[in-house]
Amino acid sequence: MKRFLPILDWLPRYSGIDFKGDLSAGLTVGVMLIPQGMAYAMLAGLPPIYGLYASTIPLMLYAIFGTSRQLAVGPVAMVALLIVTGVGHMAEPGSETFIGLAILLALMVGVIQLSLGVFRLGFLVNFLSHPVISGFTSAAALIIGLSQLKHLLGIEIPRSNFIHEILISAVQSIDQLHLPTLGIGVGGIVVILILKRLNRSIPGPLVAVVLGVLLVYGFALQEVGVKIVQEVPQGFPKFTIPAVSSDSLTSLLPIAITIALVGFMESIAVAKAIQAKHKNYQLDANQELIGLGMANIGGAFFKAFPTTGGFSRTAVNDQAGAKTGMASIISAVLIVLTLLFLTPLFYYLPQAILASIIMVAVFGLIDFKEAKHLWKADRTDFYMLLTTFIATLTLGIELGIGIGVILSLAMVIYRSAYPHIASLGKVPGTQYYRNVERFPQVEQRPDILVMRFDAPLFFANADYFKQKLQLMAQEKEGELRLIILNAEAINNLDSSAVHMLQDCIQEFQQNGIVFYITGAIGPVRDVLYKSGLINQIGKDNLFMHVHHAVAHFDNVGDEQLELLKHHAVQTNVDQPGNLWD
Amino acid sequence: MKRFLPILDWLPRYSGIDFKGDLSAGLTVGVMLIPQGMAYAMLAGLPPIYGLYASTIPLMLYAIFGTSRQLAVGPVAMVALLIVTGVGHMAEPGSETFIGLAILLALMVGVIQLSLGVFRLGFLVNFLSHPVISGFTSAAALIIGLSQLKHLLGIEIPRSNFIHEILISAVQSIDQLHLPTLGIGVGGIVVILILKRLNRSIPGPLVAVVLGVLLVYGFALQEVGVKIVQEVPQGFPKFTIPAVSSDSLTSLLPIAITIALVGFMESIAVAKAIQAKHKNYQLDANQELIGLGMANIGGAFFKAFPTTGGFSRTAVNDQAGAKTGMASIISAVLIVLTLLFLTPLFYYLPQAILASIIMVAVFGLIDFKEAKHLWKADRTDFYMLLTTFIATLTLGIELGIGIGVILSLAMVIYRSAYPHIASLGKVPGTQYYRNVERFPQVEQRPDILVMRFDAPLFFANADYFKQKLQLMAQEKEGELRLIILNAEAINNLDSSAVHMLQDCIQEFQQNGIVFYITGAIGPVRDVLYKSGLINQIGKDNLFMHVHHAVAHFDNVGDEQLELLKHHAVQTNVDQPGNLWD
Repeated sequence: MKRFLPILDWLPRYSGIDFKGDLSAGLTVGVMLIPQGMAYAMLAGLPPIYGLYASTIPLMLYAIFGTSRQLAVGPVAMVALLIVTGVGHMAEPGSETFIGLAILLALMVGVIQLSLGVFRLGFLVNFLSHPVISGFTSAAALIIGLSQLKHLLGIEIPRSNFIHEILISAVQSIDQLHLPTLGIGVGGIVVILILKRLNRSIPGPLVAVVLGVLLVYGFALQEVGVKIVQEVPQGFPKFTIPAVSSDSLTSLLPIAITIALVGFMESIAVAKAIQAKHKNYQLDANQELIGLGMANIGGAFFKAFPTTGGFSRTAVNDQAGAKTGMASIISAVLIVLTLLFLTPLFYYLPQAILASIIMVAVFGLIDFKEAKHLWKADRTDFYMLLTTFIATLTLGIELGIGIGVILSLAMVIYRSAYPHIASLGKVPGTQYYRNVERFPQVEQRPDILVMRFDAPLFFANADYFKQKLQLMAQEKEGELRLIILNAEAINNLDSSAVHMLQDCIQEFQQNGIVFYITGAIGPVRDVLYKSGLINQIGKDNLFMHVHHAVAHFDNVGDEQLELLKHHAVQTNVDQPGNLWD
Repeated sequence: MKRFLPILDWLPRYSGIDFKGDLSAGLTVGVMLIPQGMAYAMLAGLPPIYGLYASTIPLMLYAIFGTSRQLAVGPVAMVALLIVTGVGHMAEPGSETFIGLAILLALMVGVIQLSLGVFRLGFLVNFLSHPVISGFTSAAALIIGLSQLKHLLGIEIPRSNFIHEILISAVQSIDQLHLPTLGIGVGGIVVILILKRLNRSIPGPLVAVVLGVLLVYGFALQEVGVKIVQEVPQGFPKFTIPAVSSDSLTSLLPIAITIALVGFMESIAVAKAIQAKHKNYQLDANQELIGLGMANIGGAFFKAFPTTGGFSRTAVNDQAGAKTGMASIISAVLIVLTLLFLTPLFYYLPQAILASIIMVAVFGLIDFKEAKHLWKADRTDFYMLLTTFIATLTLGIELGIGIGVILSLAMVIYRSAYPHIASLGKVPGTQYYRNVERFPQVEQRPDILVMRFDAPLFFANADYFKQKLQLMAQEKEGELRLIILNAEAINNLDSSAVHMLQDCIQEFQQNGIVFYITGAIGPVRDVLYKSGLINQIGKDNLFMHVHHAVAHFDNVGDEQLELLKHHAVQTNVDQPGNLWD
């Protein structure tokens, strides 16, 4: 029962001390959520009030079904951007149709996440590598930040996911620059940044919102053209069944899958980081998917757009002392109270302040440091990051992350198809054999070739293995009598590789060369025995270490070579039939 | 120059002895080619004469541009089947449109193969694993064989790529069974099989053809309803530019890619097998693609459908003594002479004989042995074979092979995402550490955990590594003081894994546990140094073998543990920025 309802893990033992921490944290996060929620709704292409709707039901459902006790679920910048990108080409942002589609999207995201969790597919998120996430996030942050330029400058810029189009439009309309709007926006950024420096527990965005409202109200700035939020409807969102049509389901599917995965990834990353600090409970990736799925499904029936666990609010929730999901429930109650009684206060809120909140939040995500680190430490991963970054900027968010994932997987395949191969020699005065290219002092015997292959041996590299081994054998120019395959780093052997080895060893044996294997790990030894390849190699010709093999060869090698000369080695390996006509 | 025109490798040194072998082989293969070419043309949905057209120009061009000296290029069963499958839904087999499309297809296949060769992409063929090839071939052989049932039974069966449809239609029309046709067909099969047993150098199919023609002619069997080839046009095919339209190019592209790859695979497999016997020349996979590409492009201008190097004729060519590409040129000349003078002889050739030639050829391809072998030796690969086999039978040829390839690649990723992990203990009385699950006698110390991870450590398994390591550490119940990661089988370390290791090691160090690495291979040591992770582990804490690490810990471990207690270990690894908001 606890497995399906993680809330039962903490609720029965809930204490006054827990509540003290949860109350403080819940109120702090709730206060942050008001401006952030409205800002991210605006970013997602919805009226700001929808950001508050998305900050109620989903939080409560996650508290019941989620396994993290500090995760703060709700609207986040990345998902907001994915919404406006994905739905923007189906309807005009802000329109009724757009709102309906965004809510349907939440339902779809929820169903996808729930299904992934139920079918225990949470591991899929591991296929997003660190460089891909970093490159994608930096590019998305740039696009998100620049998409707010129009609110900050007070000019019209057509919405675009392409950075150059945004910049060109901005430069072309620079003569329409509205100075009071710019002043409020820049002021907002400065206030948030200064407060962040001074004391991280002061909700800078809320201070900026209060100052912005007071400023506009005091000087009637809306009359000189500063754009304000205007009327915000009061009241809790009504229970509404999202409008479903097969057309919209089909069109929304790609973006729903992207949001389901990206949202989960963001959420699980921060949940893991916080759980590692506490350790008084366990995170379960699949139950997390179920928790987020329930949050999105339930939210969709109360006008919420897609939500997930966010980085900054979760960190604040934890720092402010959250002990259990009760903190999130308290945040949600605060938002409900706001919806019921406080919405008139936001009438004069300038949109430039919401833009400044978004810009500060997302520009912090641009990750130069990781790129610099990878340039030094791992050039391949640097190019992976750069490609994902450029692909996201130029081809859009979904394609960018897709290209990143496919590239990383292709790299895995490519690496295992052309692995590192070393020829080993003996370190003088020791029993150790090392790569001749890294240890120039090692000694090689003309009659012995020691080869180490650093990858699983399987269909995609079997041919490469054979070519390389034959090449190394040829370089010994006829003096070669023994080949030792150091199989330490061969962590798997498939049937294609077995067929290749069988041909290869037979060929060597026919040429009077003995073949030994050393250091084969258990699973590889299993394959050698099961496939019958061991009979071709000889049961006595498997060794733990290279020096054992060399000693054995010096002992009985001459006999073995004689045997090879006089009759071909028997093989029990089934010969495959001719495959082709 | 020789690199681009491999013929220059042998032509200048061509000798009388070479010619003797080439003449005998060329004539033998040419004689085989006549019935096989006609049969495969019929299988491909084209009039039999097109099989002879495809046996002229392509052979000569391959002799000039190909690197194998024994490969016999021409019509083959698998490619013929792919043609009728791929083009069959665009035009009625046998119609003028169908013939035009099949010839255009040869041009496309040639251009694709030529491009793959020029861009040195020949390695792509390595991604077809042995079980996938075997499963696909067996299924295709079944489909091909059954597609000839109608010719053998003398009944009408609608063309289908689905085995159950063919069988149902055959049973439903069994009352129309034409006994004389069946007799000729079965007779043909028996003659071919018996001659194959008796002496492999007698061209059984040609004997069956001669007997079939004599039988029909002698008893006027065409008048009782035995279907015959009838008029075969005389003369060499005219130079004709294939009719190209953008519509047909688009529709033919998927099948052209499939034929280009499958054809190349068949050809390179047999070329390698034969080259391994001779070794007096080198095969080059990319030049092979160029050779086959030129053969198909050139052939398309002389009414040839797609061709490739075939298994059985190449084997015969080699056995009959072929020394160089001259043998193929001689075969082609024999076919030209046949086209010019002998076509009237084929008027009375019964189609049932052609069907019997196809059936004998392809049923030999059904590979029970490999399936049986894999069931015992490698269960995963057995299921891979079975899946490809069933997918090809039920979903069709192109989809079948596609599913096979994608499955094999997914398996590679899956295997590396959940690799084998072993906890090691000391073999009593030795310095060796072995998997506790395979060597029950090994000893483990309560304060030391030795873990071996048998895969590259990278984004897709970094999380799994961490989970498993933490779990194994927890099982030590607080007594743990040292973790030794035996990295012998870790053949790569990417930046996601570095970040994970950094977090993981820091966490252990904070809990008063020292972390050592043993047996890291060169490329992994490079990453440890470049990423700065070495500073966190400690430069003195890398060892060659586990027993070195244990000795070091027994020596200075207490000091190291004291250090951990008093101040956190300095790390030079760049911390990544927060990725998310």
